[in-house]
Amino acid sequence: MSFEITKQYIEDIQHLIADNNNKGLHTLLEEVHYADVAEIIEELDTEEALYLIKLLDSDITSDVIAELDEDIREKVLKGLSSKEIAEELNELDTDDAADIISELSEEQKKEVISHIEDEEHAKEIVELLRYDEDTAGGLMAKELVKVNENWNVLTCVKEMRAQAEEVTRVHSIYVVDDRDILKGRLSLKDLLTTSTRSPIKEVFIKKVDSVNVNEKAEDVARIMQKYDLEAIPVIDELGRLVGRITIDDIVDVIKEEAEKDYQMAAGISQDVEADDSIWELTKARLPWLVLGLFGGLGSVFIMEGYEEFMANPEFKRLFFFTPLIAAMAGNVGVQSSAIVVQGLANDIIKGSLFSRLVKEVSLSLISGIVLGILIMIFGLITNMDPLFSFTVAISMLSVIIVASLIGTFVPIILDKRGIDPAIATGPFITTSNDIFGIFLFFYIAKIMLNY
Amino acid sequence: MSFEITKQYIEDIQHLIADNNNKGLHTLLEEVHYADVAEIIEELDTEEALYLIKLLDSDITSDVIAELDEDIREKVLKGLSSKEIAEELNELDTDDAADIISELSEEQKKEVISHIEDEEHAKEIVELLRYDEDTAGGLMAKELVKVNENWNVLTCVKEMRAQAEEVTRVHSIYVVDDRDILKGRLSLKDLLTTSTRSPIKEVFIKKVDSVNVNEKAEDVARIMQKYDLEAIPVIDELGRLVGRITIDDIVDVIKEEAEKDYQMAAGISQDVEADDSIWELTKARLPWLVLGLFGGLGSVFIMEGYEEFMANPEFKRLFFFTPLIAAMAGNVGVQSSAIVVQGLANDIIKGSLFSRLVKEVSLSLISGIVLGILIMIFGLITNMDPLFSFTVAISMLSVIIVASLIGTFVPIILDKRGIDPAIATGPFITTSNDIFGIFLFFYIAKIMLNY
Repeated sequence: MSFEITKQYIEDIQHLIADNNNKGLHTLLEEVHYADVAEIIEELDTEEALYLIKLLDSDITSDVIAELDEDIREKVLKGLSSKEIAEELNELDTDDAADIISELSEEQKKEVISHIEDEEHAKEIVELLRYDEDTAGGLMAKELVKVNENWNVLTCVKEMRAQAEEVTRVHSIYVVDDRDILKGRLSLKDLLTTSTRSPIKEVFIKKVDSVNVNEKAEDVARIMQKYDLEAIPVIDELGRLVGRITIDDIVDVIKEEAEKDYQMAAGISQDVEADDSIWELTKARLPWLVLGLFGGLGSVFIMEGYEEFMANPEFKRLFFFTPLIAAMAGNVGVQSSAIVVQGLANDIIKGSLFSRLVKEVSLSLISGIVLGILIMIFGLITNMDPLFSFTVAISMLSVIIVASLIGTFVPIILDKRGIDPAIATGPFITTSNDIFGIFLFFYIAKIMLNY
Repeated sequence: MSFEITKQYIEDIQHLIADNNNKGLHTLLEEVHYADVAEIIEELDTEEALYLIKLLDSDITSDVIAELDEDIREKVLKGLSSKEIAEELNELDTDDAADIISELSEEQKKEVISHIEDEEHAKEIVELLRYDEDTAGGLMAKELVKVNENWNVLTCVKEMRAQAEEVTRVHSIYVVDDRDILKGRLSLKDLLTTSTRSPIKEVFIKKVDSVNVNEKAEDVARIMQKYDLEAIPVIDELGRLVGRITIDDIVDVIKEEAEKDYQMAAGISQDVEADDSIWELTKARLPWLVLGLFGGLGSVFIMEGYEEFMANPEFKRLFFFTPLIAAMAGNVGVQSSAIVVQGLANDIIKGSLFSRLVKEVSLSLISGIVLGILIMIFGLITNMDPLFSFTVAISMLSVIIVASLIGTFVPIILDKRGIDPAIATGPFITTSNDIFGIFLFFYIAKIMLNY
């Protein structure tokens, strides 16, 4: 299956909008999934987008709005009245509604909430707004199916039918006591296979995984992944059932986490996308470039200290090798740090620090010797002085070892101090390794060449 | 919730194993989730691991084996007879069983399969072995609940109860016709709320998303994510229902995909982990370092062509700036390529190539001018000749523009030709940008300094 949004298709829609051909639009979009409608809207200008959103049913458009890219959603919401926004939110699950409301100004928040018809729904959304978005509370929805342990299966099925109307997907039925304390769960499968007269107390499963409302989002993701859970109930400090997190929200967390590490490694400090504004992109990229610039200027100073090599017809070639040394130090450092950062993220960095040290040194020795031999061969072919090429090879070997140790241990140390180790990848490692590498290169060369 | 595996806990287990204290082990591990048992086993040596696996029930150990890291699983399976492996596989879902079998040698595969007691199960596993692991067929399991459109709800519930025994989680009930062609679906919720005499034909939902058995895994992931699906049925070329993919398998695909792009960007060409052998790690890392080495040697050649600058007391400082230029070219290139690669992966690279060109040039102009001004200030402070520092600033600006264009368009071109654009990130971009950058730097300097 695959629904292709072609240029032609977008143009057809634009023409229908220009002609105010509502019937044609309804026919064309009738069977289209809201995720596809959202993609279509992202291709239109704001006027056209608003036309479509006001035209289509709010049970579709509410999901469309929830699905939109944040920048585009902002524009669309600006074109809707507080009452119109409230109507959309009325159709949404509490977690999506809370996410959208949290993007509004304080004043508009109040206005929109006051317009939400379903009072219970509004109360739940307000409750969700209290939680930090990076916690279990920020991820959870209030929609869930719960039954009292004192009911029997028949009451339970009746109550559930009513509750299930509100819940898009029923994964588990949670069992609570009279004070709303989470006691266990029932599966739909079990309900289908149990006699209706059985008391719930006797049939429910007493073991149920749950997370606290303040648990960090990434930890929730790790738990749900590890235990292959599709939904997890959220409890408050008293053990009361307050919400439920489903796997589709966790998929987003996992993806964002992995993408964030990748962006950090590439020297992009905020979550940006190719379509963000030039200003957003510059804000995310320029600081790392400035860091790189300072690193480069540091290298200028170091090399000025070894200026005397320039007077020697053979040794002045050392300066030709500085980009090579910097590249090696950078590449090795990034490789080592990426492996450690991924290992830390997946919680698989085990064993003693000493054994890791031995491993990194062995690794870089192997690579360094292979690369050193290649340098020697290059020296032979280009008629370099053998002592000179040997010097370059040995200094490069040392640079590689030091660079890999920095790449390995800086993230580990940051992680131990509670700092996100991903910050130590990319430009940070590259820049510090450039400086260390060039210093070490000239330092060793000076000793070996005895100049 | 969180189950912490402490050093003490592992030692306790090791002591119990050394003492052959089976009762103690059973008590200690009784309530422990298989994912945690797998983590415990990864901390033990192979002998101890085998002791535990042979001791515990196969309905636990089968899941434990499926959960183990591949390297460790290989060792564990070597310690089990084909019959013992077959017993474990008998307990597993077909997709997990097929994954494990595919790791065995051709000969052992046959032996293990011949020992699987449940013939139907064995047949299904053999069928799954046919599919490439990166396709929908390679991801799907044969376990699903399906009903015939010609049944009524009562027959359906009866049949389902029997089928549901085999299926860990029931997401949807698939509706097929007499030839097994997928026609639609029923939700458990609907079944709970429909009269038992209704014919299935009248109650099932005719719209059902599905993927073809040959669909690429990443496309399946994209579809399930976009449409927020928790399970998707898989059909063959004739439209017959052949399997089902659940979201937990997709979570792994999404994670691996994101991690692969990150590793590529860091110059690691295979899927390696911190705990892999030195040989594995070297194989994944060394090729990129060799590429970097050749790039560096290329720069040596370029600089030799501009050797005459060394004779000038002011201009020889150009050589001090080469690591800075290389770092800038590399950093900018990696930033641009990372944004494009993520954009391509998420399918959000839209608009014309020309508008992207304008954007990248504007972006690099802004960054380049800011960085150029910083260079000029540095020049003032360190008493550099103003023409010289202006030359460095302008050449750097040009290098940044060219580097960002290479970083942006190489991945786009690769993607258009059907090559994974992630390969163009990291060392590849860094190395080519180093060479281009240094060449451009000296070329422009030569013109501007008129030397």
